[in-house]
Amino acid sequence: MTSYRQAGVDLLGADRHVANISSVVTSTWAANVIGGFGGFAAGVEIPDGYQRPVLMMSVDGVGTKLELARLAGRWDGIGMDVVAMCVDDVAALGARPIGFVDYLAVGALDLERDLAIVTSIAAACRMAGCPLLGGETAEHPGVMEAHAVDLAGAVMGVVEHGAELGASRVVEGDKLVGLKSPNLRSNGFSLIRALFADSLEEHLESFLEPSVIYSPAVQNAVATGAVHSAAHITGGGIAGNIPRSLPRHLGASIDTKAWKPPAVFEAVAAKGVNRDEMWRTFNMGIGFCLTVDPDGLGAVLAATAEHDPTVIGVVTAGGGLDIR
Amino acid sequence: MTSYRQAGVDLLGADRHVANISSVVTSTWAANVIGGFGGFAAGVEIPDGYQRPVLMMSVDGVGTKLELARLAGRWDGIGMDVVAMCVDDVAALGARPIGFVDYLAVGALDLERDLAIVTSIAAACRMAGCPLLGGETAEHPGVMEAHAVDLAGAVMGVVEHGAELGASRVVEGDKLVGLKSPNLRSNGFSLIRALFADSLEEHLESFLEPSVIYSPAVQNAVATGAVHSAAHITGGGIAGNIPRSLPRHLGASIDTKAWKPPAVFEAVAAKGVNRDEMWRTFNMGIGFCLTVDPDGLGAVLAATAEHDPTVIGVVTAGGGLDIR
Repeated sequence: MTSYRQAGVDLLGADRHVANISSVVTSTWAANVIGGFGGFAAGVEIPDGYQRPVLMMSVDGVGTKLELARLAGRWDGIGMDVVAMCVDDVAALGARPIGFVDYLAVGALDLERDLAIVTSIAAACRMAGCPLLGGETAEHPGVMEAHAVDLAGAVMGVVEHGAELGASRVVEGDKLVGLKSPNLRSNGFSLIRALFADSLEEHLESFLEPSVIYSPAVQNAVATGAVHSAAHITGGGIAGNIPRSLPRHLGASIDTKAWKPPAVFEAVAAKGVNRDEMWRTFNMGIGFCLTVDPDGLGAVLAATAEHDPTVIGVVTAGGGLDIR
Repeated sequence: MTSYRQAGVDLLGADRHVANISSVVTSTWAANVIGGFGGFAAGVEIPDGYQRPVLMMSVDGVGTKLELARLAGRWDGIGMDVVAMCVDDVAALGARPIGFVDYLAVGALDLERDLAIVTSIAAACRMAGCPLLGGETAEHPGVMEAHAVDLAGAVMGVVEHGAELGASRVVEGDKLVGLKSPNLRSNGFSLIRALFADSLEEHLESFLEPSVIYSPAVQNAVATGAVHSAAHITGGGIAGNIPRSLPRHLGASIDTKAWKPPAVFEAVAAKGVNRDEMWRTFNMGIGFCLTVDPDGLGAVLAATAEHDPTVIGVVTAGGGLDIR
């Protein structure tokens, strides 16, 4: 046991992996990317139009949705999940993503799988209009099981100073515009796995549907000038995330009859999850929520049309969220 | 099994973890940080003095050094490792770190351990002069063992357009200035764990020494104007990384008598690792290498004095690295 290879680290495999992903990664690069693939880091110039740019960062993983991907042997959607989780977090501040990096930890390299994962991330970056500036694929022999995989990412976004979305802009009477999510996105999967332990296989396709990336539509909405704040509906569900987009002295009333949650949420509830737990765990069909000046409502609905936007509630006096 | 808690996700623990780390995280924030703790993302303004800023990103983990930290129950240095791995990657391009995010994946929360890890990251961020803008602590019940931990991070750095360090600036005769590393940094640990499987306990303290953060000294060196390129000596060791800082048509001659590798490398070699494997796996006592215009050598040595800088070689005509 005197070489790295004998210790379980596949250096030649790593070289092949890097060669495999090279053109995939650089396919996401626009003219403003500085540096080359394989350097210590790559960079990007700030797009035109910012006088006093603020650079935002966010980091997230895809949680144990990855375990379902492994069971299904399907890796083509998981990049959408990790990119969506990150770029839609900075979109909640009104920021445009300008750089993404991924972190892939594996027990042992699997060149086909790992190329599929990076290819999926790159496709999602192109959809988000964001270069994949770097990544780390880490082998953890003896610590992770050979087949085990974990995936996380981090994004850098830019927003003009003073133009950040935020709770302090919100006033009573603002409308809550929900952008639809046809699926679970990438949250609640430890509960899903427990609930469906005996029947995961038959639900895999539905559960694995990739997350919607809202960031481009959110930027269109922000450009109308009518968006005051926003909430990315991630862990904590609607009950946990919409309050993050409201000031403490205001609340919101959510009209659950304004939309119909997709069937997957009924299937989950049918397993015996109570109503409160559903609303504080899952997105219930609304993956992103904009708090909007009523005068600009039409423009925001038009800007986000691809996500079937619906007014799901209104900002009310007094704190708290009323979901009924 | 109808609640998230029963599925192994400790939501109350997560709330306590977030409360625990709040002041630790914000202790790294300077006046240019925008946003509040607990938002969807936080941001930072670019420091003064950049006319045409390029934003760099890098991502890295600490690999299976974390497994040694777990064996020792010591988490106070691991933040230095993850921050060093990232900020010193962007330093190799001449960039100054302006934002960091961490990703901590655990089988189950351990509030004391997880606070210690974030505290260590925050301390390292303060040393690197970089705000900890966000983080994700992800529980993966049933996928990771309860005691398992993984840690990665991502950094955003800024450099003036056209002032990036790089191989294209290097000319024959440039001096290679090595900055000393007293320890293994955070690379090669899968091999270390295999080699010392029977005696890890007695070496834990030495192996766990935290990585040096070179970034502030590198910025001082860059400010002299004499640095052409740089290499962060990470996975691949000296043999794998110094060539990344050289153009293809030039090589370098490394004089191994110019410094004495710390004892830990002798202990590793004594396990039967051959010379080539040592030089292409470990830093051998040089954690960072600057390629320097000979006319500015004195200034660079002065700027990096805290890392006991030494001329370890010279750039030569013809490709390839000659280590002798």
